[in-house]
Amino acid sequence: AGDALRRLDEAGFSIVFVTNNSTGTCADVAETIARLNGYPASPDQVITSAVAAAALLAPDRPASMVVGGEGILSALTEREISIVVDPSVAEAVVVGLDVDFTYQSLDMAASAIRKGARFIATNTDVTFPGPGDLHAGAGAIVAAIAAASGRTPTVAGKPHSAIRALVKQRLVPGPVWVVGDRPETDLAMAKAENWNAALVLTGVVSDPGEVPSGLEPDLVNASLSEFADVLTSDRLSGERRSDPGGPV
Amino acid sequence: AGDALRRLDEAGFSIVFVTNNSTGTCADVAETIARLNGYPASPDQVITSAVAAAALLAPDRPASMVVGGEGILSALTEREISIVVDPSVAEAVVVGLDVDFTYQSLDMAASAIRKGARFIATNTDVTFPGPGDLHAGAGAIVAAIAAASGRTPTVAGKPHSAIRALVKQRLVPGPVWVVGDRPETDLAMAKAENWNAALVLTGVVSDPGEVPSGLEPDLVNASLSEFADVLTSDRLSGERRSDPGGPV
Repeated sequence: AGDALRRLDEAGFSIVFVTNNSTGTCADVAETIARLNGYPASPDQVITSAVAAAALLAPDRPASMVVGGEGILSALTEREISIVVDPSVAEAVVVGLDVDFTYQSLDMAASAIRKGARFIATNTDVTFPGPGDLHAGAGAIVAAIAAASGRTPTVAGKPHSAIRALVKQRLVPGPVWVVGDRPETDLAMAKAENWNAALVLTGVVSDPGEVPSGLEPDLVNASLSEFADVLTSDRLSGERRSDPGGPV
Repeated sequence: AGDALRRLDEAGFSIVFVTNNSTGTCADVAETIARLNGYPASPDQVITSAVAAAALLAPDRPASMVVGGEGILSALTEREISIVVDPSVAEAVVVGLDVDFTYQSLDMAASAIRKGARFIATNTDVTFPGPGDLHAGAGAIVAAIAAASGRTPTVAGKPHSAIRALVKQRLVPGPVWVVGDRPETDLAMAKAENWNAALVLTGVVSDPGEVPSGLEPDLVNASLSEFADVLTSDRLSGERRSDPGGPV
């Protein structure tokens, strides 16, 4: 994938990596891309659902309880939003994937929300692929807190508007392509903004027939490399575009 | 309440305590009733949602992973159902309130269910009243596991059929009264069996107007004591009845 990204760079595309993973900072995500793909991603090219959650709260900077990891803590701190652990003083609860999630976190988060704190989910992906198996995602933790609080969250990540607003701030003139492997997040984000959408078959979908109706992509590619071939060929290119990347 | 229960005993009613609380054993529940109310409840008078979950599995005795406490472990052991911790060998997952719930339990339970294990919930009460506040209930933990596994559970507790079957085994001839404070579980259990239902206003409902349509009780009483007054008066009694109690 590193080679494909370099070819898109060289062809003049502006590349942004948009991920619903809220566990790491933008720098962490950039390092992972570099390590796994050999593409020298910069933290400035990364937008996470944690950053989108922080952007949602930035106008009011409510004292926030966090059910999640370093990615959320870092994104809130960057926006000068104070982190609290006491549910009785929390004005917001930000929930993402939390491998340290316990019954006590569930109980305290639900209590704060029942008492009026805003309920923000970084994302609602119920699983994520791990080594050898799917693992429980942020959406499962969000479901528990939603059940116990009787409230539904505002969701920051793909395909919702908070993260789309951050993507739009990075766009340069020209067509936009969203490249992703998950119809419900990546393709839905593209549909919501009338961006072009390319499905790559390297992730959760192995057959375009599995794509839910209404989310059909403009392109289906076996891989990011094949997508880069198409986009840098004469068939679609001819002008410079900005290109938000899919999940990493 | 102890005095009211004694009066019902003396009037010839057979009393059964039916609780969706799955954390304790029947002996624990009987002790709690005795301590809080001074009524000498026997473990034989208690039916918990954990016992109902074990009854559901008793015909097949699948190796079971438990997300829950001593009540479930004890009920499964009583039915000679083996307890396992490895999701790859679990043939069933039994989920109730678990104050030791962690991300790892969530992930392992969902993994076992995705691989084909039966998914049994003791109950789906999303909260329970605690000192000074509501607390997250079994239903919140069940919601997380349902989200991550993509499956919905078979529910054993009130108002579902597994626990109703256990109640029916205890009935003696005569009318049946269900006395409870929670419309969605207690009153719904009564409706499902055409039992008489009495709502007491000492719990989650303070006004009969809060009862959802279709679950209207036959009687509304300020307390169990008032219920006992009515039932032991000439207005309704005249023959001996069996009387499943509400949640304790």
